[in-house]
Amino acid sequence: MNISTLKVTDSRANQIDANNIQFGRTYSDHMLIADYEDGHWKQPQIVPYGDISMSPATSFIHYGQSIFEGIKAYKNAQGNISIFRPKDNWERFNVSAERMAMPHVPEDIFIDGMKHLITLDKDWVPTSDGCSLYIRPFMFATDEFIGVKPAEKFRFMIITSPAGAYYSKPTRIYVQKQYIRAFPGGIGFTKAAGNYGACMLPSLQTKQMGYDQILWVDGLEHKYVQEIGTMNVFFKLGDKVITPDLEAGTILAGVTRASVMELLRDKGITVEERPLSIDEIVAAHEKGELREAFGTGTAAVIAPIAELNYEGNMIHLPAEETWEVSSWLKKELADIRYGRKVDTKNWMYKIC
Amino acid sequence: MNISTLKVTDSRANQIDANNIQFGRTYSDHMLIADYEDGHWKQPQIVPYGDISMSPATSFIHYGQSIFEGIKAYKNAQGNISIFRPKDNWERFNVSAERMAMPHVPEDIFIDGMKHLITLDKDWVPTSDGCSLYIRPFMFATDEFIGVKPAEKFRFMIITSPAGAYYSKPTRIYVQKQYIRAFPGGIGFTKAAGNYGACMLPSLQTKQMGYDQILWVDGLEHKYVQEIGTMNVFFKLGDKVITPDLEAGTILAGVTRASVMELLRDKGITVEERPLSIDEIVAAHEKGELREAFGTGTAAVIAPIAELNYEGNMIHLPAEETWEVSSWLKKELADIRYGRKVDTKNWMYKIC
Repeated sequence: MNISTLKVTDSRANQIDANNIQFGRTYSDHMLIADYEDGHWKQPQIVPYGDISMSPATSFIHYGQSIFEGIKAYKNAQGNISIFRPKDNWERFNVSAERMAMPHVPEDIFIDGMKHLITLDKDWVPTSDGCSLYIRPFMFATDEFIGVKPAEKFRFMIITSPAGAYYSKPTRIYVQKQYIRAFPGGIGFTKAAGNYGACMLPSLQTKQMGYDQILWVDGLEHKYVQEIGTMNVFFKLGDKVITPDLEAGTILAGVTRASVMELLRDKGITVEERPLSIDEIVAAHEKGELREAFGTGTAAVIAPIAELNYEGNMIHLPAEETWEVSSWLKKELADIRYGRKVDTKNWMYKIC
Repeated sequence: MNISTLKVTDSRANQIDANNIQFGRTYSDHMLIADYEDGHWKQPQIVPYGDISMSPATSFIHYGQSIFEGIKAYKNAQGNISIFRPKDNWERFNVSAERMAMPHVPEDIFIDGMKHLITLDKDWVPTSDGCSLYIRPFMFATDEFIGVKPAEKFRFMIITSPAGAYYSKPTRIYVQKQYIRAFPGGIGFTKAAGNYGACMLPSLQTKQMGYDQILWVDGLEHKYVQEIGTMNVFFKLGDKVITPDLEAGTILAGVTRASVMELLRDKGITVEERPLSIDEIVAAHEKGELREAFGTGTAAVIAPIAELNYEGNMIHLPAEETWEVSSWLKKELADIRYGRKVDTKNWMYKIC
């Protein structure tokens, strides 16, 4: 893939304060742009990060044909940069694209484009433990037309932003039954922009009640757990770790979720992917078998849960000292990502 | 409301071919922009229609906090311009805004801004019968931030586009059960961008099967009719006209829908707003009581239905000669809009 590249004259990378990285507030020197028109992708370009110009009639502004991914690049102690499982995100991106009637983005634009971009902006990948370069590939419809119809022109872009070490104390979770995130026959399994906008009000109301995140339940019976906030969710009941299955198409197939399941199974822990009801969690709690619960996602990686508010009943999870899997998973993933452990699974995609 | 205005030096209005107006392909000379920041709206501006510039990290691109409205302005035989029920759209816009965690747009920006804009672009309102100026107010989140959180900055805009007479032959409808448009607890009652993007693939597949529009059913029982494509839907069973009620929050509260119900009731026709199942429609058809069916919306106004494909069973609706309400409604609404009939309901908002 031939990528035309216009470099910045002066890099801003030396302006990053390594001790105070604010995620999503600073963007690296360059960005990638590829346009789709007349049924094919044009040559991608890497240009200095900056504003883009568009018609106010651009169709995605009005009709939301817009999808994204979130991926992280890590620098190891030797200074080598690798990306965590980018091909899994590329495949999921195209699953989203298909559901949203958007074109597939080929590997040589998504993966090779990302490789070129990160190589060029390698000084933007932070070195401290827990830090990374967050990579945001996204695509939106660019027809200048406000009739409601599937678009024919699209733009794919990649921007990147350095991310500091993510730590938050164990989260306080509110079980949401009034609002529903996704339903069978909808787009819950995709990373479409519309899924996120619909959650802003429920999330705001939850924070106003003093909780950090929502535990979403299914829309049909209002009892099966789905995701927490924008993360997949795992519960350890007795010796088993359980996470909701993806059958209904209402849950995102998280790359961290898949990695966590694989690591746990390798360690000999039973992992069940199946419908999990709030009632089952409450019953396990009453028997003293609710051992641990945590969210998984690219941003937080592993986010342990401190408590659940289920219709006014408070379920307090055991304290950190007793955690058997979440702390281990966090360390295991970090060791693989920062090259402290051999990457036997080929999860790390080497850049430079 | 003080609106700063920067006029074009040369209007493009004389370039419109009145006999060949292509909706949504040409936009009037000016557009309105108002920005929201630090908890309040800044002074709106009217400027020449043109591209807008934004950061690729603008939050609505990624997370879909974006809503819109569709309204029409009409020119009567005396050359006076009026807008059809804009305050109803303004109220609905703010209902959408609330659900999407966006600020209310005050009347003096939405309504007065629209009035200023249309007055300035009055030469863009077509004169021929059936023609109108389509008005598109919209708002999107403008925070330059890719963390998932409700935005704090927003932009409200209005653009307009001349619309020709809309005629299509009676539509062929496919009853969709695989995909679901909206769900209780979701955002189906809003004009959020995400609702439309999610329907592009089902709509494309329906067209590939040779049908014009989808008849959506509810997501819980897959049997109650909801909307057709992007229109509300009415069925005339015997002497009654029935349209789905809005209780579940899955259906848009159409302004044309409300107008149609009022006109029919004034004429002494029984209108029922209630759950309506496909089974009831099939049963009425079998008894010879399915008299008429049509969609209502700002674009098509009244769109009669020719046939329904329900799981392979074809339901053919009676032919145009027998229609008792849809043709009458179309004429009645046109007479009010073009000033051929006294506007006893004060639906027409005079501009100039």
